[in-house]
Amino acid sequence: MDIHKTLDLVREKSPLVHNITNYVVMNNTANALLSIGASPVMAHAIEEVEDIVSISSSLVINMGTLSDKWIESMILSGKKAKSMGKPVVFDPVGVGASSYRTKIAEKIINQVMPDVIRGNASEIMVLAQLSTISKGVDSTSETSEAIQGAKILSKKLNCTIVISGATDCIITGNKVNSINNGSPIMSKVTGMGCTSTSIIGACVAVEKNIHKAAVSAMAIMGVVGEKTEKLSKGPGTFQANFLDVLNSIKSEDIKSKTNLHG
Amino acid sequence: MDIHKTLDLVREKSPLVHNITNYVVMNNTANALLSIGASPVMAHAIEEVEDIVSISSSLVINMGTLSDKWIESMILSGKKAKSMGKPVVFDPVGVGASSYRTKIAEKIINQVMPDVIRGNASEIMVLAQLSTISKGVDSTSETSEAIQGAKILSKKLNCTIVISGATDCIITGNKVNSINNGSPIMSKVTGMGCTSTSIIGACVAVEKNIHKAAVSAMAIMGVVGEKTEKLSKGPGTFQANFLDVLNSIKSEDIKSKTNLHG
Amino acid sequence: MDIHKTLDLVREKSPLVHNITNYVVMNNTANALLSIGASPVMAHAIEEVEDIVSISSSLVINMGTLSDKWIESMILSGKKAKSMGKPVVFDPVGVGASSYRTKIAEKIINQVMPDVIRGNASEIMVLAQLSTISKGVDSTSETSEAIQGAKILSKKLNCTIVISGATDCIITGNKVNSINNGSPIMSKVTGMGCTSTSIIGACVAVEKNIHKAAVSAMAIMGVVGEKTEKLSKGPGTFQANFLDVLNSIKSEDIKSKTNLHG
Repeated sequence: MDIHKTLDLVREKSPLVHNITNYVVMNNTANALLSIGASPVMAHAIEEVEDIVSISSSLVINMGTLSDKWIESMILSGKKAKSMGKPVVFDPVGVGASSYRTKIAEKIINQVMPDVIRGNASEIMVLAQLSTISKGVDSTSETSEAIQGAKILSKKLNCTIVISGATDCIITGNKVNSINNGSPIMSKVTGMGCTSTSIIGACVAVEKNIHKAAVSAMAIMGVVGEKTEKLSKGPGTFQANFLDVLNSIKSEDIKSKTNLHG
Repeated sequence: MDIHKTLDLVREKSPLVHNITNYVVMNNTANALLSIGASPVMAHAIEEVEDIVSISSSLVINMGTLSDKWIESMILSGKKAKSMGKPVVFDPVGVGASSYRTKIAEKIINQVMPDVIRGNASEIMVLAQLSTISKGVDSTSETSEAIQGAKILSKKLNCTIVISGATDCIITGNKVNSINNGSPIMSKVTGMGCTSTSIIGACVAVEKNIHKAAVSAMAIMGVVGEKTEKLSKGPGTFQANFLDVLNSIKSEDIKSKTNLHG
Repeated sequence: MDIHKTLDLVREKSPLVHNITNYVVMNNTANALLSIGASPVMAHAIEEVEDIVSISSSLVINMGTLSDKWIESMILSGKKAKSMGKPVVFDPVGVGASSYRTKIAEKIINQVMPDVIRGNASEIMVLAQLSTISKGVDSTSETSEAIQGAKILSKKLNCTIVISGATDCIITGNKVNSINNGSPIMSKVTGMGCTSTSIIGACVAVEKNIHKAAVSAMAIMGVVGEKTEKLSKGPGTFQANFLDVLNSIKSEDIKSKTNLHG
């Protein structure tokens, strides 16, 4: 897979990525999309989400800070995107932490049929109904167990599943790729998972092979994370440096530094 | 114009600036207002916006992440501010990107009659009905074309129009000032336009000449941006350094470094 | 008081802290909780707040950007937390700035009965009905006057009151501790008060002595703030460095550097 070329495509095409996401990370994900070379738009009003998704190249739905009005907009924009053949990426933040959250995640998945679902191992296992225990937004499951669930989920929903963690796994049917990059500091910065989801949104906007796009996005996150760690003294400076590195990283760096397996 | 003196006035008077703004940039604009020496307040509940605007020196309305309840509060607080003679600055983020957004921008303008409207060239042209095509929150129009629209708009609405871009233009009737400062990195950081709008909010709170206040604000943004670029390795460190420079910049620097024309 | 041990406990137990807080500071407080070693969860939907608080170790309610739906969730989750014996920390941001805000603060306090209330001197005085004038979210009252009000409030509500400022005061009944640490830059960074409140949330989650937990939290904020100031050129770099220092500070530093009185 020439995954490094996806980064070049994002910069060349500067796709507009529509995000309906949570309050905590909006600023981070908008900045990450700008730094990678994409163009973010955040809009959630039911009156305009169909218009906004119509001028966008992809849609990212993130259920971090759920509430009823937003759910309607997520589903409406998701259906619109799919009807126009635009890829949809879904982040089921904290699914399993409340029965409401689990119900809504299932509703969004069933009604929208996203092209990619990205979560941590716990979240993916909840979706695969192998587990119903989740500690908030942190992961308590092992990635290896979650991969089995992800394969079932991928086949059932006909989508790509991304499990992020110390090792990131990208699963489409029985195909599994794993990436061993990144930094432990990333788990100390809020919204790095949500940022991954938005970067997947930028990559699926320019690369039609959804699996390849998702692998590219996770490779970019991992290589940028690794390089950023070396420049940073902790999670605060990591945040600022992450955007600098994401902005300046070369596709050749992605090519040479990604530890891709499978 | 002794525009540099506006900065001294902001620091001397530390005006309370009421912001009803979007989720993406709230933290940035609050910090920018603190760094320049003003005092920010963010409050949007319909039950309290009139009270809050009553104790504030100016009001900033930014429609980045619109929804119905917020629009009511924007209009109510805007009318209250005007009835008390307090200046109102309006940022029509993404106007033209959806018919809803265009309708709401017109509604806010007609009902509130803001003293300053700040947007990029696309947004200003949409308002001037010279164009109805907008790509999300990015600008697709040329500033030069937008100036003609801004003059018409300024006369029609009896307000000052600010077009931000590589060159910032401040238009009141036929009077046009332009500022050639700033940095290209600013377009890679989310909310720099929104920050400009809030800094205009701080300046109109202390300088009664609205045109001069707007010129001062854009000069401060440009000179601070230029100085920040030299200290930064990319958009992440730019954000942090921008606040440091805004906090420490001297009014003499604004005086000596502003490339003001017109 | 072995207050430094509270930091070790937070890192050892990594408590899940449920935050219902304002839009401006959500990202900051989530990051501060991660940096200290706790685990943040932000969720406000009425349908799930009871579930979320049930899996959390403490609850932080912050009324910075109030609106009706959120108030219901604050009260519902607060009551649930108390019924389960989980500590609740309340931040009455801007109380006194509008009659609505004052009414809601009283309603939350009366219905939830929080274990800790943290505010600046103005906010605490408003609550103690010694003063009804507040300039937005800034403090206009003297800490010394506020201590008298805090004692009355603490006895009436059977809770701990924290007054933050140049000197932080922690009051439980007639017991008063004060801490002289911190940095003047902290007042130039939005949400440092809200961050204190969340850090109190992390400390009460692991230390049953509420007064001691609150003293520990304010000592951590102060010592980290002081150390961060030395590394920073202004409020922008202060924000990033603050998280780095909070992440790496040793409990021995808290022990040796806290200027604790009373």
